[in-house]
This record gives sequence, structure tokens and C-alpha cells, in this order.
Amino acid sequence: MKELEDRIRRDGTVKPGDVLKVDAFLNHQCDVTLFNDMGAEWARIFAGKKIDKILTIEASGIGIACIAAQHFGNVPVVFAKKSQSINLDGDQYSAKVYSYTKQKEFPVIVSKRFLTEGEHVLLIDDFLANGKAMHGLIDICNEAGVVIEGIGIAIEKGFQRGGKELREAGYNVASLAIVKAMDGDKGTIEFA
Amino acid sequence: MKELEDRIRRDGTVKPGDVLKVDAFLNHQCDVTLFNDMGAEWARIFAGKKIDKILTIEASGIGIACIAAQHFGNVPVVFAKKSQSINLDGDQYSAKVYSYTKQKEFPVIVSKRFLTEGEHVLLIDDFLANGKAMHGLIDICNEAGVVIEGIGIAIEKGFQRGGKELREAGYNVASLAIVKAMDGDKGTIEFA
Repeated sequence: MKELEDRIRRDGTVKPGDVLKVDAFLNHQCDVTLFNDMGAEWARIFAGKKIDKILTIEASGIGIACIAAQHFGNVPVVFAKKSQSINLDGDQYSAKVYSYTKQKEFPVIVSKRFLTEGEHVLLIDDFLANGKAMHGLIDICNEAGVVIEGIGIAIEKGFQRGGKELREAGYNVASLAIVKAMDGDKGTIEFA
Repeated sequence: MKELEDRIRRDGTVKPGDVLKVDAFLNHQCDVTLFNDMGAEWARIFAGKKIDKILTIEASGIGIACIAAQHFGNVPVVFAKKSQSINLDGDQYSAKVYSYTKQKEFPVIVSKRFLTEGEHVLLIDDFLANGKAMHGLIDICNEAGVVIEGIGIAIEKGFQRGGKELREAGYNVASLAIVKAMDGDKGTIEFA
């Protein structure tokens, strides 16, 4: 998606350690006009698929998923939680995920009430790198018996293995920008 | 806002300990049609105010704020973070907040790049109870020198002191549903 690639080039920052900072428009400050265009693009890509629900993960996925849902007939958005809360009770699906950016393991939790066997689900997240968080969501989907219709990603780090593994496993992964290479010292970025 | 009150009555659950669970439509599963109507209502209430930016706090505020932003000319949404990340670097505004639902203290962090002195900001959050999280956002706004044009809340627990204190301090607080009383044993709820 050219608009997203252009925006990453303009407002993104490449840092040493394969860090791509896009907090100016994606995951700290949010450009809702861009989110709308991303939602429209996923709706185009997944046109004809039955999507009953969008599943994402807190925190950065939520805004993107909520605006995307407007392009899928206002389906409900469920966001997986990363910590226990007294607001989370009853039966839960849970998976463990290691976060590179937070540098710790965290749980991914979804209440069983919000995933129903046989539902068709679109998974959405802001980043796909090694795929750990997405595999956590997929584990939960499998446990719940829902059908994963596709995976919508804003930015895929194509030089890490997450996207490749998911596609090889048969998932329909739609990454709107795939970073092929980036150089933290020079601050350059190249898209697939 | 009648639609939100009706929805709380229908799909919310009152639990002992003054816990109001609205995870079926507000803060775990998200009803984006309802969010849209909430955004339209805040736009009506804050009509004529200059709003340059919406500031909220992860995680539950994000979806509500992003959809609300569409009713304020697609202004940027900034969400305060509750933990450090390697994606957060450089100068930050930071405040400390105690969360009753998480039962621990957490930081509220906003990068200095995303609040500019003189900007007019609308604060949005899903809940207002004792007001701790909102005071954290306000502290950050004051430090940044932005103008707080108003505070949009989905559900205010009117029997706790947060809303009262904020109004007495002169803030324009627009809570779309104000719970006057609730009974965790009977499961009943009464709106102001």
C-alpha cells in the first residue's frame, strides 16, 4: 500500500537493532485517516470472505482494528488482553507470548464468551516480525474453534520469519507494507 | 445518552465491589456502531470547541478515541502508554497512577513529541471512577502546556468522587452515562 510505505519513509525512523519507530502515526499517535485507508484496503483484499469478528491484541492493534471494522459491516472487535484484571473473570483462553519490544513474556487472554465455535475471524495487528504475538492469537483461535479467514498486518518486517512461516502454514496474510531491508546506521528502508 | 444506558442495562453486569462489567461491548469486545454514536454525541456536546488532538490512555480508551476522532475532523489520537518500551525513547511526560482494576501503580507516559504547547486537546476515556487515570493525563497536559477543552467519558461512576472533583476544578466533563447507584448483590443499576 503506497500510502503507508510513503508515510513510513516520511515519518518513520529506523533505529539500530532492527527497530522501526512509527509512533508518529501508528502506535502512539494515531492517524485515523490513514487507519481508514488501511481498513478500506483490507476490505478490498478480503472481499467475499465471511468475517464475523475482528480479533486483535492490545494496545496498538485496537485503533486500527476498530476503524477497520467499519469497512467490514461494523463487525465486533475483540482485543486480547496482556494482563489479568479483576474485570476479566470466568473462563478464558490464554497463550504465552514473548515480546521483543517489551523484553518480557506476557499472557494473551481472551474471554471465552467472545469467541464462539464456528465464527469467522479476521486477525489484525500493527506489526508482524517474528510472529510471536500472532501465534498467540492463532493458538487461542484454534482452541476456540473459530475459522481464521485472514491476517491483516500494517507493517511486516519481511526480513524476519513471522510472515513466511504464517504463509507456509496456509494463512492468508495481507501486510500493507513489507519491509525488505532496513539500515539503522544509515536510517534507510527498503520495501518488498 | 440513552443508547449507552440501555446497552449497559442489557449487556452490563454489576458485581460486588462496585465492579461494572461492560466487556461485552466497551472494553474487551468493542461495538464500533455504539462507539460511532458515542463519538457523534461528544461532537454535539463539544461543538464549537477547537479540538486539535484527542488524548486517551491504553488500552480501552483507544478504540473509542479513534472512532470519536472521525467526528472531530479526523484529528490525531495520542494514547498514553502504561509501560516502558524500547519503542519509547527520548523525552517523555510521565505521571504515576494507581489502578483499582489492576490493583497496582502504573506509569502514564506520553512522548513529548506528540503534545505541543498551545494545542487544544480533548481527553477521552472509557471509565471515570475515582479519576486517578484522568488526573494523570491532566498532569501531563499541564506539563506540556496544552489547553484541555473537555473530557469525554463513556461511563462515569457518579457515586465515586472523580467526576465531581473534575467539575469543581472547572473541567467540562461529558459523561455519556452516569451511574448513580448500583447493587452488586441484586445486580441492579440506576442512572443519574
